[in-house]
Amino acid sequence: MANVSIRPANPSDAALILSFIRDLAAYEKLSHEVAATEADVHAKLFGANPRVFCNIAEIDGEPAGFAVWFFNFSTFLGRHGLYLEDLYVHPQFRGKGVGRALLAHLARHAVAEGCGRLEWWVLDWNAPAIDFYKSLGAVAMSDWTVFRVTGDALERLAKA
Amino acid sequence: MANVSIRPANPSDAALILSFIRDLAAYEKLSHEVAATEADVHAKLFGANPRVFCNIAEIDGEPAGFAVWFFNFSTFLGRHGLYLEDLYVHPQFRGKGVGRALLAHLARHAVAEGCGRLEWWVLDWNAPAIDFYKSLGAVAMSDWTVFRVTGDALERLAKA
Repeated sequence: MANVSIRPANPSDAALILSFIRDLAAYEKLSHEVAATEADVHAKLFGANPRVFCNIAEIDGEPAGFAVWFFNFSTFLGRHGLYLEDLYVHPQFRGKGVGRALLAHLARHAVAEGCGRLEWWVLDWNAPAIDFYKSLGAVAMSDWTVFRVTGDALERLAKA
Repeated sequence: MANVSIRPANPSDAALILSFIRDLAAYEKLSHEVAATEADVHAKLFGANPRVFCNIAEIDGEPAGFAVWFFNFSTFLGRHGLYLEDLYVHPQFRGKGVGRALLAHLARHAVAEGCGRLEWWVLDWNAPAIDFYKSLGAVAMSDWTVFRVTGDALERLAKA
């Protein structure tokens, strides 16, 4: 295995983070959904009291991938969890344990913070990712579906 | 429709909030998963700089239901969203617009905070809830599945 190191992202990573976000969206065939700008990344990840965080994985000093995450909460556990919003490894660095290193890092952070869970979601067609996640002990919450209100529907509901 | 009012929860609501959490778990046939205590509710919702929030719905001053939520984040939008962890209406107050009032309140808060989305998840067998959510303009994210690492698997991954 290559020597993977994980570090917290810093403001000088904003362009890199945005490029990873766009690369992940392209992989997920969702590029049309990306509206985020470098200014958004700066403001949300590196402003005062951020509610969302990023780690960069490096191999020999080269950025190889990233994880973006925040604290969710389980009322049943009465504890926070870590929710992994984005996990991405650059194609040239795949198969070197980068994704596993990022997830293990987040699991350590979750345990250290007293969190009960590490969670994320995955597109159902992404079989290689699903197999990988299951190999790490992740369980599919198959009897639940996420619902979303956004755009005009959110504005309408806000006026209801 | 009854006169539903929504207010932020305060520390004196901790026992009420825990009772709503337990009632919701019973409805979802998941009572065995509830480990939360009143002390957890106090610490997580009413400590310094909380990362999770609660609103209480009242009818004529009687607590009728609650919503527990936190800020999630969309890398694609570059914006936070509101994630609704729990929504519950006491049986004696159902059919009076309490759930709708809570969701509309959160939608207003989402818009006011510059959030792009209001999201939550629902058990696939809960057809009445799903029909209600769709009537509000919510869309099922049917091609995604949530994965979770917890318990021993989380500890193992943390040591990987």
